[in-house]
Amino acid sequence: MIVVTNDDGFEAPGFAAAIEVACEFGRVVAVAPATPQSGRSQAITIYDPLFLRERHREEGLEIYSLSGTPVDCIKFVFDHLLADQKVDLVVSGINHGSNSAINVLYSGTMGAAIEGSFYGCPSVGLSLLDHSRDADFTDAKCYGRQIIASILKSQEQPRPLCLNVNVPVVPNIKGIRVCRQCRGIWREDFFPHVDPNGRNYYWLTGNYTNYEPEAEDTDEWALSNGYVAVVPVQIDLTSYSDLAYLNKVLK
Amino acid sequence: MIVVTNDDGFEAPGFAAAIEVACEFGRVVAVAPATPQSGRSQAITIYDPLFLRERHREEGLEIYSLSGTPVDCIKFVFDHLLADQKVDLVVSGINHGSNSAINVLYSGTMGAAIEGSFYGCPSVGLSLLDHSRDADFTDAKCYGRQIIASILKSQEQPRPLCLNVNVPVVPNIKGIRVCRQCRGIWREDFFPHVDPNGRNYYWLTGNYTNYEPEAEDTDEWALSNGYVAVVPVQIDLTSYSDLAYLNKVLK
Repeated sequence: MIVVTNDDGFEAPGFAAAIEVACEFGRVVAVAPATPQSGRSQAITIYDPLFLRERHREEGLEIYSLSGTPVDCIKFVFDHLLADQKVDLVVSGINHGSNSAINVLYSGTMGAAIEGSFYGCPSVGLSLLDHSRDADFTDAKCYGRQIIASILKSQEQPRPLCLNVNVPVVPNIKGIRVCRQCRGIWREDFFPHVDPNGRNYYWLTGNYTNYEPEAEDTDEWALSNGYVAVVPVQIDLTSYSDLAYLNKVLK
Repeated sequence: MIVVTNDDGFEAPGFAAAIEVACEFGRVVAVAPATPQSGRSQAITIYDPLFLRERHREEGLEIYSLSGTPVDCIKFVFDHLLADQKVDLVVSGINHGSNSAINVLYSGTMGAAIEGSFYGCPSVGLSLLDHSRDADFTDAKCYGRQIIASILKSQEQPRPLCLNVNVPVVPNIKGIRVCRQCRGIWREDFFPHVDPNGRNYYWLTGNYTNYEPEAEDTDEWALSNGYVAVVPVQIDLTSYSDLAYLNKVLK
């Protein structure tokens, strides 16, 4: 059984694309947010109730929407809908837009993929570097299918395993590169506007700065050079290199 | 200059407690979410406008609310309100409730602290293991003050530095321990209800499982044994130990 979710909502073409790929590998239960949840990171819903709606059912495929975040969807499917059933893989995506480099921290797609890996099965976040609603998912489906097949057939698979897969938009993809997360940050511009009642408001928008554009082992380099970037993800945020320093400073 | 934010909203007593401590170290600009944002992780607001309101102004202290997430508050203060001004430290908190172990991933308090460290200054997330609104912040303020003073006076400080500080609720705190993030996960219970219109809905609630209760170098152990837990945080999610395996599997 494959669980599918995304962060663009249950009506997103990328969700349909992920379901299409997942169905090639077995029974699929797909639960996506009822509304777009891009940039929701690992957020969970504490103060609001969660409403579930069945959207589609056929042999081997169920699709639901949940009025929460991508992580809520994963928690709900594992701890309620499919409680005690064996899940072989989680697929999150296919995201409309990149989740490479530091975007992994802000991404609802990757939040859900990371959460999926907590339930003892491998988890794959798939993203295409095209934000548009009419994006062409052909390459993303092709490489997603290949990566999922490789993970499922591997006999020595470390569990949990979580992959951040980004697919570039180029005429001819050169192949897959296993990478590390590129260092870099966003700096934001807040566009000011005034509403009809005279209140100031702002829209968040920004630009990414790559701190290491020359490094050839990063996901950003792979994507800029026409490769699919695959970064294995872990969730221990401890900065081990700071432990000794802190022990000295805080004494 | 010290920037203060939190994830419980601008009216939370823990926000006032953090501002009180920060004001001892210099000018303070405090921007908190307009509404409670617990569990918002590193979420950013993409689809909604952000409304800013000044809530308080006196010599050396400005307090604002922003209609977004904790990370939005940090981005807004650094890239708009204080653009090009030097900030010495970010304080996020004092959170009503623990952000130890895997909670660091879901925490809006720590999302903001992590974001703060992206702007080249040290950043401290402060949390007290008491969810109640009338929590006693005396110990959290005392140890927060001590840690902030140590960080600000250190001459050999690595930047950016981000700390996840959790304070237990015990009669006599034994001191500070520098720790690593404990391994463990949440498993959820979804409490079902029916609304007056007959629709089913659910509340997310759960229990934490500690995978390594005996390990004495974790934040969970420190807190259970009466210590303030300090975990230095980093943001490279690459699972380096999986790179070789993946290169083999995905060929």
